[in-house]
Amino acid sequence: MSADPADRIEELTGLLSRLPGLGPRSARRVVLYLIRRRGTLMAQIARSMEQVARDTRECRQCGNVSMDELCAICANPARANGQICVVEDLADLWAVERGRAFRGRYHVLGGTLSALDAVGPEDLGIPRLLDRIGPESVSEVILALNATVEGQTTAHYIADALHDSGVTVTGLAQGVPIGGELDYLDDGTISAALNARKRV
Amino acid sequence: MSADPADRIEELTGLLSRLPGLGPRSARRVVLYLIRRRGTLMAQIARSMEQVARDTRECRQCGNVSMDELCAICANPARANGQICVVEDLADLWAVERGRAFRGRYHVLGGTLSALDAVGPEDLGIPRLLDRIGPESVSEVILALNATVEGQTTAHYIADALHDSGVTVTGLAQGVPIGGELDYLDDGTISAALNARKRV
Repeated sequence: MSADPADRIEELTGLLSRLPGLGPRSARRVVLYLIRRRGTLMAQIARSMEQVARDTRECRQCGNVSMDELCAICANPARANGQICVVEDLADLWAVERGRAFRGRYHVLGGTLSALDAVGPEDLGIPRLLDRIGPESVSEVILALNATVEGQTTAHYIADALHDSGVTVTGLAQGVPIGGELDYLDDGTISAALNARKRV
Repeated sequence: MSADPADRIEELTGLLSRLPGLGPRSARRVVLYLIRRRGTLMAQIARSMEQVARDTRECRQCGNVSMDELCAICANPARANGQICVVEDLADLWAVERGRAFRGRYHVLGGTLSALDAVGPEDLGIPRLLDRIGPESVSEVILALNATVEGQTTAHYIADALHDSGVTVTGLAQGVPIGGELDYLDDGTISAALNARKRV
């Protein structure tokens, strides 16, 4: 046990510097901070990370994180309201959940269609989505995909695939964000908001 | 084992958001990134952190991190050259080591004297430093303390305490940093560099 602790600390710094938003310098700062709190915060983080890494899996049905075969949302009968919200990844699912406006279920694609990266419909679980329509009596599929070219291409593909299934396919409204100032918005958003204007 | 994984993930996000440089949003981004790599990077970080938290202690002699009673530097007879470099904390020790110019031993204070925070000489291990002078045949104590008011107050106190011990007490030179542009330097640094000018 007389290995140089500097090696271990160096190893930990190297691992942490691979995280988004951290570089070699900020990783070193984090490690120093943790070493000063090694009995408390550091041990807690290590334990928590180990648990999450060990117990987290993907929901067989929707692709959300879960600790069982089915995630908490898919296992909750109150969320079976005939709506499925299609999102690109987990971060988007969390974003929609934070909004508290949606009470149905999700379908996490895990990416967008991309010919360049050879990502096809099967990689995104789109056949799995189509298979859910009947058994879950889905009446509406909400495409909550990013307003990027890739997101919109994927949305078009899914809308096409659902065309003959009889479900309503909707997309998020585009317009001025709450609290947004017109002066700072791009032209495309203003045009979209104008075209979709509503009687007040 | 059917606890909502969201709780565990929330807990991990909360812990990570306490790290320097990370807020709630960047912690969430890190957690998402880790969940996607839960079998590889996340498990590695958890293991590495757990080892460092478990095995790291403070060197009995100098206060450096160590896995034994004595740190690698104190245990290395080649570093017993009669010089002790006094630094404020571990980060400063690492900074001096990266410079590769110093081949003696260290003394980590763990802070600076502060009447406001009730940090006295005993809290900084200054008596322990004085006790090292004789047994380690120390001939020079280099005060590598930060050029702040607190750092310089502490340096003065240590220099006073060592006054009758017969060791040479030195401090880091002040001047223009390597690669520094005069135009961007503060007036104090330029005055210090002028006053300490050397024949070339």
